[in-house]
Amino acid sequence: MAGSTFGTIFKITTWGESHGAGIGVVVDGCPAGLKLCAEDIQAFLDRRKPGSSRYATQRKESDCVEILSGIFEDRTTGTPISMLVRNTAQRSADYSDIASYYRPGHADYTFDQKYGFRDYRGGGRSSGRETIGRVAAGAIASKLLAELGITVTAYTQAIGDIAIPDADCPISLLDLEEARTNPTGLPDKDASLRAEAYLKQCMENMDSAGGIIACRVCGMPAGIGEPVFDKLDATLAKAILSIGAVKAFEIGDGVKVSVTNGSTNNDSFRMQDQKVTKTTNHAGGILGGISDGSELILRAHFKPTPSIFQKQETVNQNGENITVQIRGRHDPVIVPRAVVVVESMTAITVLDLLLQNMTSRMDKIKQFYNPIE
Amino acid sequence: MAGSTFGTIFKITTWGESHGAGIGVVVDGCPAGLKLCAEDIQAFLDRRKPGSSRYATQRKESDCVEILSGIFEDRTTGTPISMLVRNTAQRSADYSDIASYYRPGHADYTFDQKYGFRDYRGGGRSSGRETIGRVAAGAIASKLLAELGITVTAYTQAIGDIAIPDADCPISLLDLEEARTNPTGLPDKDASLRAEAYLKQCMENMDSAGGIIACRVCGMPAGIGEPVFDKLDATLAKAILSIGAVKAFEIGDGVKVSVTNGSTNNDSFRMQDQKVTKTTNHAGGILGGISDGSELILRAHFKPTPSIFQKQETVNQNGENITVQIRGRHDPVIVPRAVVVVESMTAITVLDLLLQNMTSRMDKIKQFYNPIE
Amino acid sequence: MAGSTFGTIFKITTWGESHGAGIGVVVDGCPAGLKLCAEDIQAFLDRRKPGSSRYATQRKESDCVEILSGIFEDRTTGTPISMLVRNTAQRSADYSDIASYYRPGHADYTFDQKYGFRDYRGGGRSSGRETIGRVAAGAIASKLLAELGITVTAYTQAIGDIAIPDADCPISLLDLEEARTNPTGLPDKDASLRAEAYLKQCMENMDSAGGIIACRVCGMPAGIGEPVFDKLDATLAKAILSIGAVKAFEIGDGVKVSVTNGSTNNDSFRMQDQKVTKTTNHAGGILGGISDGSELILRAHFKPTPSIFQKQETVNQNGENITVQIRGRHDPVIVPRAVVVVESMTAITVLDLLLQNMTSRMDKIKQFYNPIE
Amino acid sequence: MAGSTFGTIFKITTWGESHGAGIGVVVDGCPAGLKLCAEDIQAFLDRRKPGSSRYATQRKESDCVEILSGIFEDRTTGTPISMLVRNTAQRSADYSDIASYYRPGHADYTFDQKYGFRDYRGGGRSSGRETIGRVAAGAIASKLLAELGITVTAYTQAIGDIAIPDADCPISLLDLEEARTNPTGLPDKDASLRAEAYLKQCMENMDSAGGIIACRVCGMPAGIGEPVFDKLDATLAKAILSIGAVKAFEIGDGVKVSVTNGSTNNDSFRMQDQKVTKTTNHAGGILGGISDGSELILRAHFKPTPSIFQKQETVNQNGENITVQIRGRHDPVIVPRAVVVVESMTAITVLDLLLQNMTSRMDKIKQFYNPIE
Repeated sequence: MAGSTFGTIFKITTWGESHGAGIGVVVDGCPAGLKLCAEDIQAFLDRRKPGSSRYATQRKESDCVEILSGIFEDRTTGTPISMLVRNTAQRSADYSDIASYYRPGHADYTFDQKYGFRDYRGGGRSSGRETIGRVAAGAIASKLLAELGITVTAYTQAIGDIAIPDADCPISLLDLEEARTNPTGLPDKDASLRAEAYLKQCMENMDSAGGIIACRVCGMPAGIGEPVFDKLDATLAKAILSIGAVKAFEIGDGVKVSVTNGSTNNDSFRMQDQKVTKTTNHAGGILGGISDGSELILRAHFKPTPSIFQKQETVNQNGENITVQIRGRHDPVIVPRAVVVVESMTAITVLDLLLQNMTSRMDKIKQFYNPIE
Repeated sequence: MAGSTFGTIFKITTWGESHGAGIGVVVDGCPAGLKLCAEDIQAFLDRRKPGSSRYATQRKESDCVEILSGIFEDRTTGTPISMLVRNTAQRSADYSDIASYYRPGHADYTFDQKYGFRDYRGGGRSSGRETIGRVAAGAIASKLLAELGITVTAYTQAIGDIAIPDADCPISLLDLEEARTNPTGLPDKDASLRAEAYLKQCMENMDSAGGIIACRVCGMPAGIGEPVFDKLDATLAKAILSIGAVKAFEIGDGVKVSVTNGSTNNDSFRMQDQKVTKTTNHAGGILGGISDGSELILRAHFKPTPSIFQKQETVNQNGENITVQIRGRHDPVIVPRAVVVVESMTAITVLDLLLQNMTSRMDKIKQFYNPIE
Repeated sequence: MAGSTFGTIFKITTWGESHGAGIGVVVDGCPAGLKLCAEDIQAFLDRRKPGSSRYATQRKESDCVEILSGIFEDRTTGTPISMLVRNTAQRSADYSDIASYYRPGHADYTFDQKYGFRDYRGGGRSSGRETIGRVAAGAIASKLLAELGITVTAYTQAIGDIAIPDADCPISLLDLEEARTNPTGLPDKDASLRAEAYLKQCMENMDSAGGIIACRVCGMPAGIGEPVFDKLDATLAKAILSIGAVKAFEIGDGVKVSVTNGSTNNDSFRMQDQKVTKTTNHAGGILGGISDGSELILRAHFKPTPSIFQKQETVNQNGENITVQIRGRHDPVIVPRAVVVVESMTAITVLDLLLQNMTSRMDKIKQFYNPIE
Repeated sequence: MAGSTFGTIFKITTWGESHGAGIGVVVDGCPAGLKLCAEDIQAFLDRRKPGSSRYATQRKESDCVEILSGIFEDRTTGTPISMLVRNTAQRSADYSDIASYYRPGHADYTFDQKYGFRDYRGGGRSSGRETIGRVAAGAIASKLLAELGITVTAYTQAIGDIAIPDADCPISLLDLEEARTNPTGLPDKDASLRAEAYLKQCMENMDSAGGIIACRVCGMPAGIGEPVFDKLDATLAKAILSIGAVKAFEIGDGVKVSVTNGSTNNDSFRMQDQKVTKTTNHAGGILGGISDGSELILRAHFKPTPSIFQKQETVNQNGENITVQIRGRHDPVIVPRAVVVVESMTAITVLDLLLQNMTSRMDKIKQFYNPIE
């Protein structure tokens, strides 16, 4: 297998298991000259850290990033940026009981089938800790995009059936400050409190909950994305589905489009301030796989955490039916910690296609290599 | 841009515009020794041909495939299989009026922004005809998978709000024969008749409809798909979203997972006939991005055809607001013709990851290169 | 296998066998807006056509190219350019005798080992005709580079031991007009006549000859090529060795460097006309895998045509030792027809890395996306 | 840029600068179940360590490898293997003088042109230390190949004009034990002593020397390598030229083929012990880009170390002509330390194509997925 690399120009390779020496990422293809320091990365990592709320596992993990290469005098050099987060809290004993059987909803069985055995400690490579590498790379992509006037913002749109009223309302009406500080990631204080009550009940039931994360990209230039296979939306779909526990992806109106009509779903073009704009954005900012200059809107649907404390039926490696009860510390919902992961994967994807787009036109290439003529 | 290639081992490259000389595909990495002839391809292409029903454009297109390379004495040789379908029905005059403005819901504007100009005839590269190449390649992938006991079956699950009762019912209960012969692709005669009535009304309203296509893969071995970025579901999501007009992708229970709980959503493992099976299949056949041996289930949500005959507001290339009325022949719904496209992209993706999986284990590699020892 | 694609941004995929329906190439990632017509391609193809001299096979092949996609109103559209050359002269009967045994120096045995059988007609995929696709793509790359002031020129440097006096003399001193018109490709009339005499003798001996092709690139900007694995010279080496019959590759002083010293081999930098230049060019225009702005110089060493008419010992598919005598029409030397292939692969490689280089610097990316602001 | 990754299935990504925190590599796509520990890697790294002879720089570098992921209970898990070697001996002060000017023969100028500035400490990313990552990955590839009966052996063939008598003599006649222990890597004690005398003289002259490294692969199965662009020899050429200071690559008879004839150069096939063999091996084990089952033989030509202590002319970043004299510690010849790098890149390339080859035949794929059942 060789599936740990994502991207064509801005290319990330993640590595690491939950209970190995550490987790990391190599970012290749980052342009030279971007101001960057460890704090930029750490700020992103802290957003996915456990222990920030009672709905996240209480393990004490420092998750301190070390930049090992690719930076000189606080700027990227154009060479690979290697980043490392040591695992500090691993206690293999906690997980030894799951070595012999397959947890329902987990990748235990499929890893064993694929590789013949597995690193059973804490989910190994399929652990949520793998996303540390993505988030570290996402911090770089986001910072670079910001210098081009492009901002990527993800937030919780729903936990269980508690959803914010209209996912497609203008981003300016969302309380993003609230979303960053409350334990659910919902950009609405009241909804967040209700979601907390729901999660509390899930925990009492020894059960878990799912939810939805939305992500928006403002300031997109038109023309980003390649027709046919490397469409912007198709590449985003892969990026988002590659996050563990995501079971559905929507762009713009998403699943609603099957029940609407063309006369409603088509976004009219209109001139505004001498620029081509759309009067609506059912398309979610993409036409024919290419950005149209309006806001990008996507949604990721997360399944409930598979680790629940109820008794469950499963089989063990000897092929016997057994009943198990998982112990340990597990989030009752993945969504709040995954917000920054969705944001990171979106930023990485948009940046990669934005860089690819630089070679699409002969006139611009001529200008690039002969800037004065 | 370089986005016309899909796959790692089984690699397809499509080319061609709606009104150029033709449409085609190069399939590289197809194993040697597969029995293959033009009829195998033609049978698939005929499933996407227009004119098979009144809900598809009535243009007369032969869409006859010619295999140009890669076959010798009716077997694949392991070298690239190049296939060509000539465009025969192009009449550029039909489309000359759309050269100067941007059709709402189409890729006219974004192509112009990306490339500086566009081949405006019939949608150019963003035309639905591009999928001919995918379907020709899909025919090969499907035939190869069938030899391994793996069958891929797509069908219409919904047109507008007319949906078959339960998308997740056993495939054996679906009337697939009906789906192959009626004009909607719905595997239920009654639903299909209601969908026809709905489409008739859409056409009277000079409007269009959306719908849902489901796809199932039976006979999957466990272990297919790579952890992290090249997960089976993530790669399928990209494959499916790369089809024009798809706005959402679901695997297994899809968007329903956000409102369920872990105790319900987890599929229990149980021994059956000395094999590990799951008692339910909310996961849609994938755990941690890797096939678990149960049926693969995915859904694609298609937007309504953007070409409608009502008056629409848009802008032209001079930056003026105008009102336009598109003429010509356009399907009121894309879904029935797209069924074989979804099936093809699914087959291509599954096959590519199945081939990639052959290198995952040392013991099997040793056995492969030293079969007797 | 999936080895028929070359390049990252400017990506070519060749297909076709000697005696199938035709030979072709898909060029993906060609920027939009390049003036291009079939004559541009044909001019290149004519340079590799057989029958132009008595040292090339006398088969009558028209090798007329048809452009099937990617061009609109005489300009590239940014979408894949598919090109097709029909095989017209195939007579399988000529080759039926070689179906059962392995020609020495050919790929018959290795194809059988890899694929279980082979298309034995005329070498199948390993035929020199495969290079038609490369040359068609090379015509596009060369034309595009020319618009940026970059010219790629290949010529024969040696046939057997008849070599032009100094391969590294200034390109202005070479008689390139002579090279284009004489049957050897040597840029020196006298040397060419001597080479002709040598080839005549080889033919009388029912034997064949090898030779060397040099290629130079003038007008290179500095900075092209990626450090580490995708170095300009490394990528050129792959491009050139991928041409059948090439057994060695040199950049700059090449094999001479092992016997020189650093004090001689280092090229001093000096200012000239306010530009950084090198006083010598032992490096062949590349330092650390990146172009230094001076002329690029490479050489490819070709083995003698393996098809000779002498009796040879070999084995057949039944594992029996046999003596064979190959019949048919075969060039006594590959070199003259391969000149344009070397030129094409060089142009394709340089262009691809030149496009990749556009994303290397943050300041230039900012300028690209915000040109005036 | 994104050029730090090599390989398709067995994929390595190196990172790190001479004077950053460390150097490393991520190996993705290594099959699961290979016995592996840090000592396997360290043994390879020790072969490239400086200080092992007076012809290598005397810096004291420990170069201790740490395996950060991908190993569980002493076996590879199929997930990425991340390896780290900390830089311990960096003293930036040593290099501060070279920040302002361009060393002849180095990549200082080209990095500045590409990226706008450079990490000037010790050559930054273009330092020979980058090869640590390659060697760490090569140790894994070599160990895996050994389990399949394939051995990769590199050695010094020449330093300056002191070459071992016949590079193509049977490997059994080479004194490989001598090559591993003497300071030149030449598999001949007398030649090594003469080379030492030559190097001593180079050092007295404040000059440097070049040389040749040969590499042989025994036990190759036939069928490895993909026709057309991913030929075994073409991919090896890229792998070897990507090593800094290599200026030429030869396979088999290499540069000698241009002056030979087909009747001499063709290797006859003969049956031996009921196997197809070749009576000679001018081809170096490859026909049509695919291994023929005989020994693989390649050669890499290294230029003299560009760092010499004589006065040299160059320019500085202000565009002024200056005379410089480089100080510090530099090897008078790169070759002895590069032997293990050539061996590593060869092993990585062979392994990657060997894994790719597993999908070439339908009959073997069927057998793989339905072995007997």
